[in-house]
Amino acid sequence: MTPGRFITLEGIEGAGKSTVATIVRDWLSARGISVCLTREPGGTPLAERVRRIVLEPGDEEVSSVAEVLLMFAARDIHLRNLVRPALARGEWVVCDRFTDASRAYQGAGRGVPGEWIEQLVAAVHTDLQPDCTLLLDLPVSMGLARAKARSGAPSDRFEQESEAFFERVRAAYLDLARREPDRIRVVDASRSLPEVEQQVVTVLQGLLGTA
Amino acid sequence: MTPGRFITLEGIEGAGKSTVATIVRDWLSARGISVCLTREPGGTPLAERVRRIVLEPGDEEVSSVAEVLLMFAARDIHLRNLVRPALARGEWVVCDRFTDASRAYQGAGRGVPGEWIEQLVAAVHTDLQPDCTLLLDLPVSMGLARAKARSGAPSDRFEQESEAFFERVRAAYLDLARREPDRIRVVDASRSLPEVEQQVVTVLQGLLGTA
Repeated sequence: MTPGRFITLEGIEGAGKSTVATIVRDWLSARGISVCLTREPGGTPLAERVRRIVLEPGDEEVSSVAEVLLMFAARDIHLRNLVRPALARGEWVVCDRFTDASRAYQGAGRGVPGEWIEQLVAAVHTDLQPDCTLLLDLPVSMGLARAKARSGAPSDRFEQESEAFFERVRAAYLDLARREPDRIRVVDASRSLPEVEQQVVTVLQGLLGTA
Repeated sequence: MTPGRFITLEGIEGAGKSTVATIVRDWLSARGISVCLTREPGGTPLAERVRRIVLEPGDEEVSSVAEVLLMFAARDIHLRNLVRPALARGEWVVCDRFTDASRAYQGAGRGVPGEWIEQLVAAVHTDLQPDCTLLLDLPVSMGLARAKARSGAPSDRFEQESEAFFERVRAAYLDLARREPDRIRVVDASRSLPEVEQQVVTVLQGLLGTA
C-alpha cells in the first residue's frame, strides 16, 4: 500500500486555516482520496487535554519553556496515536498547524532558542516531515481583524498577544518558506475566498500529479 | 529574609514517602519553620492536570519521550507557581519526588538518554537544586508488596511496571546517591517506622544545624 501524504496548514490568527482545511479535504475526497483532517495542538482526546492546558491555564503562569515542552508532548501523542497510523493506512493527513507553528510562535514569538526547538523535532519526529505545507499569509492587521470579527474578544493565550508578537510570527513563517520553497507554498490569504481556493487547488494539483 | 530550604523525597513505590513527608513537615513545624508540603508531578492545579495526563492517559499510548516532556513541563509550572515563591517567602519546601525521579524512572527505567534529561534540567531549573534529598531505599519486592497492600491492584502507569523496571529505578537512585553523597542521604526504609523516623530526624538535625 502507498503511504498517504502529510499536508500541514500554517498561518497567523484569522488567516483562514479552518476554511482552507475544508477546501483541501473536499477537493481530495472528490478525487477518491481518504482524508484524515486533524489539528495541533490536539487531534486526539489525550493531546486535546494537553492543548487545553496550554491555551486555558487558568490563573497560573506558563513559561515559554513549559509551553514548548507541552506542544511537543502533544505532538508526540498525536503522531503516535493518529497521524502515523493514518498515513500507514494510506490516508492523506491534513493537519491545522504543525512544527512550523512551534518555530514561528514559540521560537520567533516567544524567543525559545531555535536549536532547542530543532532538538525537540529530532526527538519527536525526525523520521516524519510534512510533504507539503500551505502557508496562508496575510497582513497581521487583517488577520487580527478577521479573528476578532469571528470570535469577539480574544479568548486564549495566543489571541491575547500583541500585534508585534504576530508580526514576529508572520516574519518567521515567511523566512521558513524562503528556506524551504519546495515544501512550504505561500498562499496569499488576503485575497477573496475564490482566489484563495484557486491558489490552494493549484498546489494540490501539483501534489497529486507527483503522487 | 533568609530563603527557605528545598527538601525532596525519593524512592520506589511503597518506600514510605508520604509517611516520611508528614514526619518531616511535623518535625520542622514543631521548630517554628513554615513548611510547604507538595509533590511531583503536580503540586498546583495546572501541574496536577499534567500529572493526570501522564498517569491516566486512557487508551492512548504515551512514549517515553512524551512522558519526560510532560514531567518537565509540569515541573516548570510547579516551580514557577508554587516552589520558587514559597522559598522566596522563607518557607521550607518538602517535595514528594523531583528531578532525581526523572533520572531514575524516565532515564534508567524507560531508557531516555541521560544527556537529554540533563538538557531539560538546564532549561527548567539550572538555578535551583534541592538542598537535601532523602532517598528512601528498600528491596523492590518489599516496596511492591507494601504498595499492593496499600492500594490493591496496580492503578497507574508506573504501578503496572515490572519488577525489573523497579530494580533499574532503585539501582539508578543508589548510583545518584553515591555520586552526590552530600545532597542525597540514603534512609534504610526497610526498617520499622520508629527506626526510619530516627534516621530522618538525624538528617534534619544536621540540616537545621547548618541553616
